Amino acid sequence: MPKEETVVKKEKQKPEFGEDFDVVIIGAGPAGMSAALCSCRAKLKVLILDSALPGGEASTAYKVWNYIGFPDGILGENLAKKMEDHLNNYDISYSCEKVEDIINISSSIKTIKTDLENEYNCKAVIVCSGLEPKEIDKPFEKQFLGRGISYYAQCDGEYYQGKTVAVFGSGNCASYASDYLAEFVEKLYLINPKDYLKAVSSLKEKVMNNSVIDIIWDTEIDDVFGIDKVEKIKLLSNKTGQSTWLDVSCVFVYVGRQPSKDIISIEFEVDEAGFILTDEYMRTNIPGVYAAGDIRSKQIRQIATAVSDGMIAAVNVEKDIIRVRR
Amino acid sequence: MPKEETVVKKEKQKPEFGEDFDVVIIGAGPAGMSAALCSCRAKLKVLILDSALPGGEASTAYKVWNYIGFPDGILGENLAKKMEDHLNNYDISYSCEKVEDIINISSSIKTIKTDLENEYNCKAVIVCSGLEPKEIDKPFEKQFLGRGISYYAQCDGEYYQGKTVAVFGSGNCASYASDYLAEFVEKLYLINPKDYLKAVSSLKEKVMNNSVIDIIWDTEIDDVFGIDKVEKIKLLSNKTGQSTWLDVSCVFVYVGRQPSKDIISIEFEVDEAGFILTDEYMRTNIPGVYAAGDIRSKQIRQIATAVSDGMIAAVNVEKDIIRVRR
Repeated sequence: MPKEETVVKKEKQKPEFGEDFDVVIIGAGPAGMSAALCSCRAKLKVLILDSALPGGEASTAYKVWNYIGFPDGILGENLAKKMEDHLNNYDISYSCEKVEDIINISSSIKTIKTDLENEYNCKAVIVCSGLEPKEIDKPFEKQFLGRGISYYAQCDGEYYQGKTVAVFGSGNCASYASDYLAEFVEKLYLINPKDYLKAVSSLKEKVMNNSVIDIIWDTEIDDVFGIDKVEKIKLLSNKTGQSTWLDVSCVFVYVGRQPSKDIISIEFEVDEAGFILTDEYMRTNIPGVYAAGDIRSKQIRQIATAVSDGMIAAVNVEKDIIRVRR
Repeated sequence: MPKEETVVKKEKQKPEFGEDFDVVIIGAGPAGMSAALCSCRAKLKVLILDSALPGGEASTAYKVWNYIGFPDGILGENLAKKMEDHLNNYDISYSCEKVEDIINISSSIKTIKTDLENEYNCKAVIVCSGLEPKEIDKPFEKQFLGRGISYYAQCDGEYYQGKTVAVFGSGNCASYASDYLAEFVEKLYLINPKDYLKAVSSLKEKVMNNSVIDIIWDTEIDDVFGIDKVEKIKLLSNKTGQSTWLDVSCVFVYVGRQPSKDIISIEFEVDEAGFILTDEYMRTNIPGVYAAGDIRSKQIRQIATAVSDGMIAAVNVEKDIIRVRR
């Protein structure tokens, strides 16, 4: 049988100001890393830019059960690490910078400008900047952010072991956060503005039957009080208009996610919710600019669909942009 | 931090004649297994039928490098095993049977008939029956099949350690098979009917630079000779019309893949190559029948895109068919 191939892991390279790339990938979540992998395999010169560490929202997930191939589930952060390791088989440039603008976006050579005042040139761009949490848009949110208001149960949850917390939302992410947090908080109130829970059946059942979780239906969070950090929340029933109070140490806000604002200045064609419209080849309305993953207008935003999108975008960058110029 | 969830592995169940399912998945490759995983997670009652063991073509791949999350690559058969293990977290029925027909395919309850004369009823079907190797359509192919003509380097390659073999083809799969076989055969002739090799750059480079591999361009295999098994092949140059002879122990045929004939009797709308047309939700022209993976008309046929397709099909089966009847 064949000899086992030796895998030589490589260090990520730091890009230089003004350096030329075949493709710049904005965002290092599953879509971005998959796009990078396929681009590297097609011998493109690749730069990944992300304002955070690799992994995207996947790394904030507790346990991933639906990316097939990991029979015992895998922690989001571990899957993100494996994806990053996978890229280390290739020569690739990576930098932790926020993209602020793309100059000459309609030209064949585009220039990426970042918050560190760097510039990088490229023939193609794949936007994989994902989603960010939606805010409720109430004054208490900014006031208590990081002091008992959180958008990431996986990151901040561990500070609330044995405490009483609230999760606000009515969907899959709120259910998932509740299920995760219920493992170690003493009591969890799932404050639900709707009269239903819209989550995948197995998860919904788990949440509904968990004795640590009380679901408070048809209810908004009206206000938050505390001296230095969250101590108490004021609830408002949508049905009766009555107010009640609860003592909680933290409110985890899960009211949805929206396209990341990193790319907001670019004139993409978007759907009514602000997601970038692409064709099945992941092409946006701007020649040479592709979008993949959660930022794209599509039905299902999961790791598996993001990975697929990234691969398709990379193949088409090579086909549409790089191969024709060779 | 949360307690580690205990994963209780389950035995696959054997379906009974006339048993009712929410969804029957035809094909247990990556698309079918991903569709099954997502269907199970949505609490659907699932039956998978495949005329072979789980894994599909993925299990015949040597090393899979582009399904992100496996940093050191993973043997196709091992990835298939992990996917199958993943399904063992759920109650699922599986049977090794070939689907011969779907009766009442346009009704809300469809009946699957198999080669073992079993019948199973279901509300929805996801066709994930994948591709099968194309034949060259020459008499020697059937004559020597299993005796020096093979379509699966990964399965049959090990019998040819230290021997001289030929691979016939001009694409990615032919290149891949050559790269794989070159690790342990003494000499490999890549008989290429074209004057170019159409493979992903990194692979193409590996094949072109491998001293074990000789590429014979612009050449067809005209005939095969041998007493009991393949001993000699007659080549015909497309350019000069000249014939030459080569001593080889095996010819691995990699001239492309075509939709599996398992579903050929069903009146799907297909593209000109015979692949099933779907919308972005994986719906075929027949209500309640979905298609996912390589059998579908689409640009990129890879494990990652198949897994994504399977997930999307399952979500839409639940949404379109099951949820509305609850």
